[in-house]
Amino acid sequence: MTIRIGIMGYGNLGRGVECALAQAPDMELAAIFSRRGPGAVQPLTAGVPVYYDSQAPEHRQDIDVMLLCGGSATDLPTQTPQLAQLFHVVDSYDNHSQIPAHFARVDEVCRQAGTVGVISAGWDPGLFSLARLYTQAVLPQGSSYTFWGRGVSQGHSDAIRRIQGVADARQYTVPVPSALEAVRSGSQPELTTRQKHTRECYVVAKEGADRAKIEEEIKTMPAYFADYDTTVTFITAEEMARSHSALPHGGSVIRSGVTGWQQEHSQVVEFRLQLDSNPEFTSSVLVAAARAVWRLAQQGQSGCRTMLDIPPALLSSQSPEELRQTLL
Amino acid sequence: MTIRIGIMGYGNLGRGVECALAQAPDMELAAIFSRRGPGAVQPLTAGVPVYYDSQAPEHRQDIDVMLLCGGSATDLPTQTPQLAQLFHVVDSYDNHSQIPAHFARVDEVCRQAGTVGVISAGWDPGLFSLARLYTQAVLPQGSSYTFWGRGVSQGHSDAIRRIQGVADARQYTVPVPSALEAVRSGSQPELTTRQKHTRECYVVAKEGADRAKIEEEIKTMPAYFADYDTTVTFITAEEMARSHSALPHGGSVIRSGVTGWQQEHSQVVEFRLQLDSNPEFTSSVLVAAARAVWRLAQQGQSGCRTMLDIPPALLSSQSPEELRQTLL
Repeated sequence: MTIRIGIMGYGNLGRGVECALAQAPDMELAAIFSRRGPGAVQPLTAGVPVYYDSQAPEHRQDIDVMLLCGGSATDLPTQTPQLAQLFHVVDSYDNHSQIPAHFARVDEVCRQAGTVGVISAGWDPGLFSLARLYTQAVLPQGSSYTFWGRGVSQGHSDAIRRIQGVADARQYTVPVPSALEAVRSGSQPELTTRQKHTRECYVVAKEGADRAKIEEEIKTMPAYFADYDTTVTFITAEEMARSHSALPHGGSVIRSGVTGWQQEHSQVVEFRLQLDSNPEFTSSVLVAAARAVWRLAQQGQSGCRTMLDIPPALLSSQSPEELRQTLL
Repeated sequence: MTIRIGIMGYGNLGRGVECALAQAPDMELAAIFSRRGPGAVQPLTAGVPVYYDSQAPEHRQDIDVMLLCGGSATDLPTQTPQLAQLFHVVDSYDNHSQIPAHFARVDEVCRQAGTVGVISAGWDPGLFSLARLYTQAVLPQGSSYTFWGRGVSQGHSDAIRRIQGVADARQYTVPVPSALEAVRSGSQPELTTRQKHTRECYVVAKEGADRAKIEEEIKTMPAYFADYDTTVTFITAEEMARSHSALPHGGSVIRSGVTGWQQEHSQVVEFRLQLDSNPEFTSSVLVAAARAVWRLAQQGQSGCRTMLDIPPALLSSQSPEELRQTLL
């Protein structure tokens, strides 16, 4: 019997889930739910029904796990607890400082409803969190570093688009090569924000806009750019469409630790991603997490979980015997 | 209450466990057991008792988890099932093809005795197995690659030492840089054994030995060297002691997958280790696994597990709340 998946929200992430499900032998796409409704949504998968998001409760019997593909700012804080009353759920909630509060809300609902929820599945939070956990557990004496990029930051791109005179913008977060090398050497350097990443901005200015003023506003924007070495390049709308329409991303979690009676041995562990498509990779994690959610539910469990709580073998379509034989 | 650890076998791995325990706030070294007995073993830790290995059953009440630090060839196949009758146990059994059989033996004993056993903890098998599992679960369409080194292979060094005329030897396994680069590019190349690794041998010849014959015997040795580009360098015993007494190792697990409706996006994930001390890193994994074993036992579980089955959070000394707050 295949696991029947519902997709709630059909943007980049929802389409990514649809693609990832096509690679999962033990899962099927049962329905897509969207704010825009069936008329406005054209699924890639032949024959899959589309409903308004508000119709989800009517399809409780057709869905084993609901994958929430909305945004962390406004959708998930209300959607995940709400839908966890009816479904086992997975989301990619990534507002790091608010995760404990989101966890508590979802956990309470899941326990009452007897459902399983996994929040914050993706790569950061998600696989990067796992890399931090495993490496810190194994190397308790040391320093952890996270580098992001080279990749498009949607939040920073949006921040530039809100500046007067900007028609479009794309921001790349770029790790500083010398900082990466220093960390990989095991020297455990102390690095400031500026020393770790640079920010590259590609901007389409509106007709007659003051480019010098736009550049100044970007470079001095608090939190987003002021603490970084930022470059601003003005390009045409055509150039933007031609060279900057993809959503690559990636990065590295590096743990640099020491072992030995005198702490004389350096041990460096790196977990690194190079992603052509950031949303499709996040979606792929959501789909693996959905498999684990279903299995936890079959075991009679309920409550909220994160990737840190999930026995790894539950993420795979292979049996424990196959995994031991082929991966150990 | 701290978790009381016993060390069975006091070689490189046992000493590594002793060092790793000094970094674990929630664990203590309760006793060391050795074939050589108390007279012949000098622990680093002040005041820790040393017993003959045969005395282990007498100390059942003093040990929460026994860490088995013997070898996979002759010690662990009998020791792990035997001691699992009396203790929760962790081993680093690494004879890959025999892991399912070892698992079955340990599992049967553990279920009967009500104990928890974790086998094959370390980095390969162990953290590398986890890297393969997570990345294959997330990217089911793709190819997995494992590169080892640059590092000392004990098995290959021993194989050279058995050749007539050889006084000492050290063998380094070295990944081929161009192969690593090809894999990291996402091109998913098909690579032969010879294309992935080279083997560097440093040999101390006995007085009057036929060096040309030794070199020929090494380079044509089936399974160990014949399928590789192998270099042999003769050095003095002094040079061996000065430059080749450390046990560095490492390597990379790389998953190169594709996502998207047309499989149009390449996604590359790499998990990489650079270890100054191979045995101390393995020991550090054993100690984290011991923490998980104890917690599983406290939950009332019994039976054999591998790293693939362990909820990651159980490996850490931090609470689930702390982990969610700091790592997600």
